[in-house]
Amino acid sequence: LRALHDAWSGWLVVLLVGLSAGTCAGIIDIVTKWLSDVKLGVCPEKFWLNKESCCWNSETVTPSGSNCTKWLAWSDVFGMSAQNAQGVYAVNYVMYIVVAVILATFAGLLVKVFAPYACGSGIPEVKTILSGFIIRGYLGKWTLLIKSLAAPLSVAANLSLGKEGPLVHIAACCGNIFSYLFPKYGKNEAKKREVLSAAAAAGVSVAFGAPVGGVLFSLEEVSYYFPMKTLWRSFFCALTAAFVLRSMNPYGNSHLVMFYVKYNKPWFLFELVPFALVGVLGGLYGAAFIHANLRWCKFRSTSKLGKYPILEVLVLTIITAAASYPNPFTKVDASAMIAELVQECTPVSKLTDPNLCDYEELPVNQTYSVSHGHQLAPVGEGLRTAIWQLAVALIFKAVITVFTFGVKLPTGLFIPSMGVGAIMGRLIGIGMEQLVYAYPDCVLWASSCSTNTIRESCVTPGLYAMVGAAAALGGVTRMTVSLVVIMFELTGGLQYIVPLMAAAMFSKWAGDAFGNEGIYDGHIRLNGYPFLDNKEEFTHTTLATDVMMPRRGDPPLKVVLQENMTVGDLEHLVKTTTYNGFPVITSQDSYRLLGYIYRRDLMVALENARHHSENVLSNSKAYFTLHAPTLSTSGVNEPAPVRLFNVVDLSPITVTDHTPMEIVVEIFTKLGIRQALVTHNGRLLGIITKKDVLRHIARLNKQDPDSIMFN
Amino acid sequence: LRALHDAWSGWLVVLLVGLSAGTCAGIIDIVTKWLSDVKLGVCPEKFWLNKESCCWNSETVTPSGSNCTKWLAWSDVFGMSAQNAQGVYAVNYVMYIVVAVILATFAGLLVKVFAPYACGSGIPEVKTILSGFIIRGYLGKWTLLIKSLAAPLSVAANLSLGKEGPLVHIAACCGNIFSYLFPKYGKNEAKKREVLSAAAAAGVSVAFGAPVGGVLFSLEEVSYYFPMKTLWRSFFCALTAAFVLRSMNPYGNSHLVMFYVKYNKPWFLFELVPFALVGVLGGLYGAAFIHANLRWCKFRSTSKLGKYPILEVLVLTIITAAASYPNPFTKVDASAMIAELVQECTPVSKLTDPNLCDYEELPVNQTYSVSHGHQLAPVGEGLRTAIWQLAVALIFKAVITVFTFGVKLPTGLFIPSMGVGAIMGRLIGIGMEQLVYAYPDCVLWASSCSTNTIRESCVTPGLYAMVGAAAALGGVTRMTVSLVVIMFELTGGLQYIVPLMAAAMFSKWAGDAFGNEGIYDGHIRLNGYPFLDNKEEFTHTTLATDVMMPRRGDPPLKVVLQENMTVGDLEHLVKTTTYNGFPVITSQDSYRLLGYIYRRDLMVALENARHHSENVLSNSKAYFTLHAPTLSTSGVNEPAPVRLFNVVDLSPITVTDHTPMEIVVEIFTKLGIRQALVTHNGRLLGIITKKDVLRHIARLNKQDPDSIMFN
Repeated sequence: LRALHDAWSGWLVVLLVGLSAGTCAGIIDIVTKWLSDVKLGVCPEKFWLNKESCCWNSETVTPSGSNCTKWLAWSDVFGMSAQNAQGVYAVNYVMYIVVAVILATFAGLLVKVFAPYACGSGIPEVKTILSGFIIRGYLGKWTLLIKSLAAPLSVAANLSLGKEGPLVHIAACCGNIFSYLFPKYGKNEAKKREVLSAAAAAGVSVAFGAPVGGVLFSLEEVSYYFPMKTLWRSFFCALTAAFVLRSMNPYGNSHLVMFYVKYNKPWFLFELVPFALVGVLGGLYGAAFIHANLRWCKFRSTSKLGKYPILEVLVLTIITAAASYPNPFTKVDASAMIAELVQECTPVSKLTDPNLCDYEELPVNQTYSVSHGHQLAPVGEGLRTAIWQLAVALIFKAVITVFTFGVKLPTGLFIPSMGVGAIMGRLIGIGMEQLVYAYPDCVLWASSCSTNTIRESCVTPGLYAMVGAAAALGGVTRMTVSLVVIMFELTGGLQYIVPLMAAAMFSKWAGDAFGNEGIYDGHIRLNGYPFLDNKEEFTHTTLATDVMMPRRGDPPLKVVLQENMTVGDLEHLVKTTTYNGFPVITSQDSYRLLGYIYRRDLMVALENARHHSENVLSNSKAYFTLHAPTLSTSGVNEPAPVRLFNVVDLSPITVTDHTPMEIVVEIFTKLGIRQALVTHNGRLLGIITKKDVLRHIARLNKQDPDSIMFN
Repeated sequence: LRALHDAWSGWLVVLLVGLSAGTCAGIIDIVTKWLSDVKLGVCPEKFWLNKESCCWNSETVTPSGSNCTKWLAWSDVFGMSAQNAQGVYAVNYVMYIVVAVILATFAGLLVKVFAPYACGSGIPEVKTILSGFIIRGYLGKWTLLIKSLAAPLSVAANLSLGKEGPLVHIAACCGNIFSYLFPKYGKNEAKKREVLSAAAAAGVSVAFGAPVGGVLFSLEEVSYYFPMKTLWRSFFCALTAAFVLRSMNPYGNSHLVMFYVKYNKPWFLFELVPFALVGVLGGLYGAAFIHANLRWCKFRSTSKLGKYPILEVLVLTIITAAASYPNPFTKVDASAMIAELVQECTPVSKLTDPNLCDYEELPVNQTYSVSHGHQLAPVGEGLRTAIWQLAVALIFKAVITVFTFGVKLPTGLFIPSMGVGAIMGRLIGIGMEQLVYAYPDCVLWASSCSTNTIRESCVTPGLYAMVGAAAALGGVTRMTVSLVVIMFELTGGLQYIVPLMAAAMFSKWAGDAFGNEGIYDGHIRLNGYPFLDNKEEFTHTTLATDVMMPRRGDPPLKVVLQENMTVGDLEHLVKTTTYNGFPVITSQDSYRLLGYIYRRDLMVALENARHHSENVLSNSKAYFTLHAPTLSTSGVNEPAPVRLFNVVDLSPITVTDHTPMEIVVEIFTKLGIRQALVTHNGRLLGIITKKDVLRHIARLNKQDPDSIMFN
């Protein structure tokens, strides 16, 4: 029965995590939708409704021109006449900025006052925690609550940030909290990390409605060590979360995914060239972004700027809102913009912005089939406007995101990156289309784009936007398989997996050429978390002896002798050092290694010994042998010997001094250990800790080894 | 430039593997199609065409009733009159068996004469090879060629086997062959295994047209150690292979996948109960199959039966062909049957067997929409026949597969398992539908299946067949995530992922309750391959000292002394033992460990020494120290000392005698080592090899430890 409970508790905990992550995501989505619309106006009858719900079943037109009487724009609320067009615009503009500032300030205060850990995307920290480092309170219930509140506020303030990254952090918080309900998971850090891996998968699953992609994201990007058993449970967790979210139906359609598109047209082989170009540009953008963002974050933490986080948020919000409002593509939130950009232009396509499909109409002989795409035609007046707006939006988004990622708000990076990529992709797609129009007989596409009477366009700019989104996201995060699978789950067609793959590959190559770390690894390094990358290959030829402590000339290694040490010696050793443990050797002469004793265990054992017997004095002898001499009965005043054999770890991991560091790094990453003892011919020589390894790698990579350390 | 070449060679090799695997799969598919139809007749004008290609653009009717004059059934070839119905049937029946026997015998002879390794599915062996064991010639070009020939022959002979498993082996052969083109991969076993992992992914990718599923299959089921870098390359390899296959277009449609279905109707929550039931039945079938098949294979290898493989194939073919022909579901090959069973019944559905959708027609008020499913109605006459035929086919397939998997032919297990599951699922689906018809007001489904005027059926038996296929495959192979993803890629709808997941979960639970190893692990154990499972957790509390050699009472460990041994001593040691290496210790007294010397290295070094200098005699002293005494110049006849320091591995992995076996097993699986040395306080105590670990686990699991060993 207990084994059964044991087996079931694993499934139960991931079920609970999935349910809670799905619920959180659903609530966040709904709140975000409502708050986003508050920038534009209110629903006076039922203020808790957003524009879409408010205008349900309403067809008449308000003074300000929107086709719904129940929803009032801010100018209507203030009783402005529609004739005063400039005044209406000004009032709405100002209210947009004012509401955005209120929302952002409120989010900033929440984070600053209640849960400082709720800022950022959280993915670098979750990654570090999964590698074995402990950050107390980072996954606590306060972080969960505040992040869940602040994320919709920040997104609704129209800052260039997303709630997808924070959802991973929120799901991880759920995982952490629920794992305490089950002693098997709450009390074992390794087991708890299994739950956290599953939770990270659920986070991405609900963020994009992509359960398979979520599991692969957790596997590839977040998790450090992923046993197969965990994979299956993570998948269950991700699917549960996605299912709950779908039942809540925040996107208002039956599709699980965020940007569901179904293209009517296939892609052609010649298009792989522009797709690769999009990929390279995405990669270059990613590399530039990482570089610029890391420099700005470094500047923030070293200058006075870091002391006024709320002010920074305020200024950023004002600039973003003021610059966003005039442009129809940046006025709406970024995910709505992406959803629009990835659409195809068909005679029945329902785009909010009709300019995007405004091509000149050419005379055709046949009537147009609904199932077809649009005609291959020159750019119309509306589209020309849209192109300008997109170009401005591209530059603005690309720049402002650098300054936004890292402020003291929950800041996800998925949607902003995808937004920049989607704009870039759409622009290149339109360009490609015009190229095909201008040179219809070019040998590259003449056979694919047959010039029939309809002259249907063989280029789908929406697909380019999708590919561009993948490329930019790939460039920033350096995701690979999970990126392709997430995007493939979004489009829902196996067919488009090849363009996505091509873009992801070129993006990664181009990005890696200018610095081979993703934004998350960059922030891990910037924050100095002790994270030993398990993806990088260690290619240097150094040996364990080059890395171990003590270095030549250092004072000798602090060790504990099996016999011949007194309680006082040990207490002095603990007091005068900060190491987290000490090797135990047989004798000062032989230096044969017996085991390793953790500082904590030693301290507790010494305290206990003092506490239990009054005869334990500073000059009591401490024995780390199996058979210590029994307490001599001769004199009560004689110091009693202390037996400490059972607190020694008798199976420390050892390596020889000649072991190549390549193998040492492999042992550290795969076994997840924090220190290894170095021996030579059975003699203890020194010790290598995880920090020594990190410092060594930093030195080899010509980075400052001391900047790496967190504490 | 060299670094660039280095980086590119990795991509180039997987590209080549993908291209070749895709090409092999395409050719195999085409050949299989043609050979399968030869059982039924020929295309006299162009004998190399199969029925479908032959009948292209033909509409008239032959004497035997098929609607194509260009294709002749065997009875037509022999000039039988269509009036003699019994005679026609008999001739076609006999020719079916004769052609099947010829094909199977030819396949059997090919395997027996040219490449014995081409038999079986190959997955257990590929798995073992990826865990670090070397089976010479198993992935050679002969195996590739013969398996590629024999697989279509065996499938065409209508034996209960598939070509999907063999495709994994074939792809792995491609991987092995191409890796020799690049020294970086050909000369490094670990690097080669990365290519093999990618190749396995490509194999499944082309088998099912499921690139993502293929990668996950390789990750979950086949590969032992899967670094993230490999994941991305594997994905590229799998996608390339799928793309090549699609360009060859063997299925004659634009979909990549094997059983592409798109259901018009959603599933309802109440259906999770029957889905779970299907899952449990699939799991039980899997457990029973594994048990029965392993017993039969054991019987085959221990009895005389194993000596007549061709005869066995012959008998099996005759029985299978004779029993298959009368039943329309078993007459066609299994993948065609599955493709039919997973279809929906709609007014426009094109099923080869119209019986399957023959419901009684009930009067309806409205005309039927094409997009809808069929009417909820009682079983008609035709469907009643089909149910009987399906039931017979189910029993026959379930039984014959037990005897088929393991004969000396390329025998895949995916399609037969899925076939059994699909029949079972379809039957349960029809039953469920009739249950809904009989009790329309049951509270479980009353709300979901609204009794409107059309009374459209809310149960899709085709979906049950799909779920059943997943359940049975899951029960046999114990795949989890990869199973769901493969099936999900087949159906092409994220919507059906929940039923598939439910079935896979219940199938695995039910299966694990009756023996927790999949068929591949079972065959690995049966064949005694030294495979240390990295998925099983080691839960016992034994220590390294309980496992190491020498045991108490054994002769002492054979060691090499750092000094004081002569060349003759070493040669004697190598001659009288079969160990693959020896620990090197400083002296007989201290037993301090210096390193480890591999038998092969030692032999080569001794031979070289003898070869290069005549003064190296049996009584030459061998030095394993950094500074050996230089050659004394006093006398030429004096035996010259031999320096062997540079062939010693100075960084052997060591564990202490108190290390729990749990950690030792972790070290073995994660670091992929073959032996670890056991020390106590720096003194060498013994050695643990991978085989010792396997023997120990077998003993703890109450299995015969000696049956485990391959050699």
